[in-house]
Amino acid sequence: MTIQNVAVVGGTHGNELTGIYLLNRWGKYPEKIERSSFSTNLFVGNPKAIEQNRRFIDEDLNRCFTLASLKSNEKATYESLRASYLNQIIGPKGASAHDVVFDMHTSTSNCGVMLILMDDNKFNLRLAAYIQSQMPEAKIYFIPPSQTDQPYLNSICANSLAVEIGPIPQGVLRSDVTALTEGVVYHGLDYIQSLNMNMEPPIPASVEVFEFKESVSFPMTDGVVSGYIHHSLQDSDYQALGAGDPLFECLDGSVIRYDGPETVYPVFVNEAAYYYKNLAMSLCVKKSLRTD
Amino acid sequence: MTIQNVAVVGGTHGNELTGIYLLNRWGKYPEKIERSSFSTNLFVGNPKAIEQNRRFIDEDLNRCFTLASLKSNEKATYESLRASYLNQIIGPKGASAHDVVFDMHTSTSNCGVMLILMDDNKFNLRLAAYIQSQMPEAKIYFIPPSQTDQPYLNSICANSLAVEIGPIPQGVLRSDVTALTEGVVYHGLDYIQSLNMNMEPPIPASVEVFEFKESVSFPMTDGVVSGYIHHSLQDSDYQALGAGDPLFECLDGSVIRYDGPETVYPVFVNEAAYYYKNLAMSLCVKKSLRTD
Repeated sequence: MTIQNVAVVGGTHGNELTGIYLLNRWGKYPEKIERSSFSTNLFVGNPKAIEQNRRFIDEDLNRCFTLASLKSNEKATYESLRASYLNQIIGPKGASAHDVVFDMHTSTSNCGVMLILMDDNKFNLRLAAYIQSQMPEAKIYFIPPSQTDQPYLNSICANSLAVEIGPIPQGVLRSDVTALTEGVVYHGLDYIQSLNMNMEPPIPASVEVFEFKESVSFPMTDGVVSGYIHHSLQDSDYQALGAGDPLFECLDGSVIRYDGPETVYPVFVNEAAYYYKNLAMSLCVKKSLRTD
Repeated sequence: MTIQNVAVVGGTHGNELTGIYLLNRWGKYPEKIERSSFSTNLFVGNPKAIEQNRRFIDEDLNRCFTLASLKSNEKATYESLRASYLNQIIGPKGASAHDVVFDMHTSTSNCGVMLILMDDNKFNLRLAAYIQSQMPEAKIYFIPPSQTDQPYLNSICANSLAVEIGPIPQGVLRSDVTALTEGVVYHGLDYIQSLNMNMEPPIPASVEVFEFKESVSFPMTDGVVSGYIHHSLQDSDYQALGAGDPLFECLDGSVIRYDGPETVYPVFVNEAAYYYKNLAMSLCVKKSLRTD
C-alpha cells in the first residue's frame, strides 16, 4: 500500500486551540509537514464553533460521521452539515480521497499524550506503536468499536489517529501542549514516509493499551450533581483504581468509593467537555495488543 | 463600625464553577458561613451564563456596576439588567443593605490564591492582610482605581474582597481550588466576627502588593494573533521579569522580549477569559501598602 494523501484536522472542537494554531502555523510554513512521498492537506473542523470559542454549536461534530447521518436528508444542525462537507472534501467515507487522517484534540484532564485508536486495524496500531517508540510518555487509548458504522471524524478513512493532549484549559494555547502535538504529527508523518519508502522502522510486537470499559457519571441527588472528583483521584489518569479507592467527595462530606471487581485505570478524569453529559471519567482495563 | 450583613457572591462569571458549587454547599449546610455577630447572605451572579457554561451572555457582568450604568434607562444587555437586579438586592451602591461583599472567581492562570483589592480602603487592606497571615501563600493584587465610579460588582459595597484562584480550567471543579476558596471566605468571615467582637487579631503594619501597571496584548500580524506565551513565562505568575526576558514565541519561531525600563511581575499569564480581548497578561510592580 502506498499512502498518497494525508489529512490533518484541527478545530474539530472549537475551544481546543492547539490544533487550530498548528493549522495556522503549517499553512504559513508548510515545509514542516511536507514529506516527499505523499501530500499532507490541512482541514479546519468547526469554524463557527471556533469563532464562538465553544466545543460545538448544536451537537458534537466528532459524533456526526456515521454513514447513516452523512446520507440523511434531514440535516438540522450546523455540525451535521459541516460533517457532510468535511466528508466530501476529506472522504467520502468508504472511498476516501485521503488514505490517513490525523485529528488533533486537547483535554482538561491530566491525560498527557494520548493516542486514540477506534479499532485494532494493524496500520493504526503500528502507527501508534511507532509514535510511542519515539515518545515513550505517550499512552494508547483503545475504544473497541461498539458499532460498525462509527460516528467519529476519523472514521472517514480506514487509517487514522486521534491525538488528545492535556492538561490544558479550553480556550487556551500552551507552548508545551503545542510542541507535544507537533511531535505526534511529525512522527506520524515520518512513519508514513518510511512505509512508502519500504523502510519501515522496527515496531514492537505488541503494545500496552488502555481499553475503554465504561463511563462513570457524577453522583446525582434529586437530579442535581452532588459530588465531585475526590482530591486523591484528581490528575491521576492511568493510575490503578481498586475496590475501596475514593472516586467522589460529596456535598455532605461523604466519600463515594469504587466498588468494581477488577483493577481499572481512569482516564479523562474531570474532563470539562463531558460535564454537560455529567460524565466524570472513563474506566479502562489494561491490555496488550499484537501489532503483527 | 459593626458589620451587620455580608454578601457572598459566586457565578459572577458563568463558567467559573467553584463559587457556584460553594453557594450550593453553603445553601445546604449554612453553619459553615454562619457567624454569631452578623448575617451572611448568598447570591448567584449570572444564572443564564451559568446555565450556558459561558463567562457571560452579552457583556462581562463584572464591568456593569458603574452608577452611570446602573441608573441608565437603556439596558440592552442581559448583564446590565442582572447588575441592576443584584444592585437592588445587595446594594444599592452608595447606601447598601450589605456592609461587605466577597466575590468568588477562578482563573486559568497559575495565580494561586489571589486577593484582589480595587482600592486602598483600610478595611479591605486589613482584611486581606489578615487572610494572608492565615494563608501565607496568598498574594495581594491591587488595581488602583482609574475612575471614581467603578464598574466591579464589589463596588456595590465600600468594603469588599474579590478572590481569584487558579490554575483551573473554565467549566471544571477541582477539590483543591474549592478548598482554597473556602479557606479565604472562612478566614474573611472570622476576621469580620473578630472586628464585631472588638477582638481584632494583630495585623501586619504593611503588606506587599502587586500593583497593576499595564496590560500586554498578544502580538498581532495583519490583524491576527501571531504569537503565544513563551514557554519560560507560562505558569510563572509573580516571577520577576526584566529587560530582555522572553514574553512571546511567534509563528515564525522568533521571540518577543520584554523591553521595559523596570522590573515587573506578570500576573494572569495566559488567562483564557482575556483571549477575546487579545490580552496575554497584566504587568505589576511590587509595592508595600501600610495597613494602619
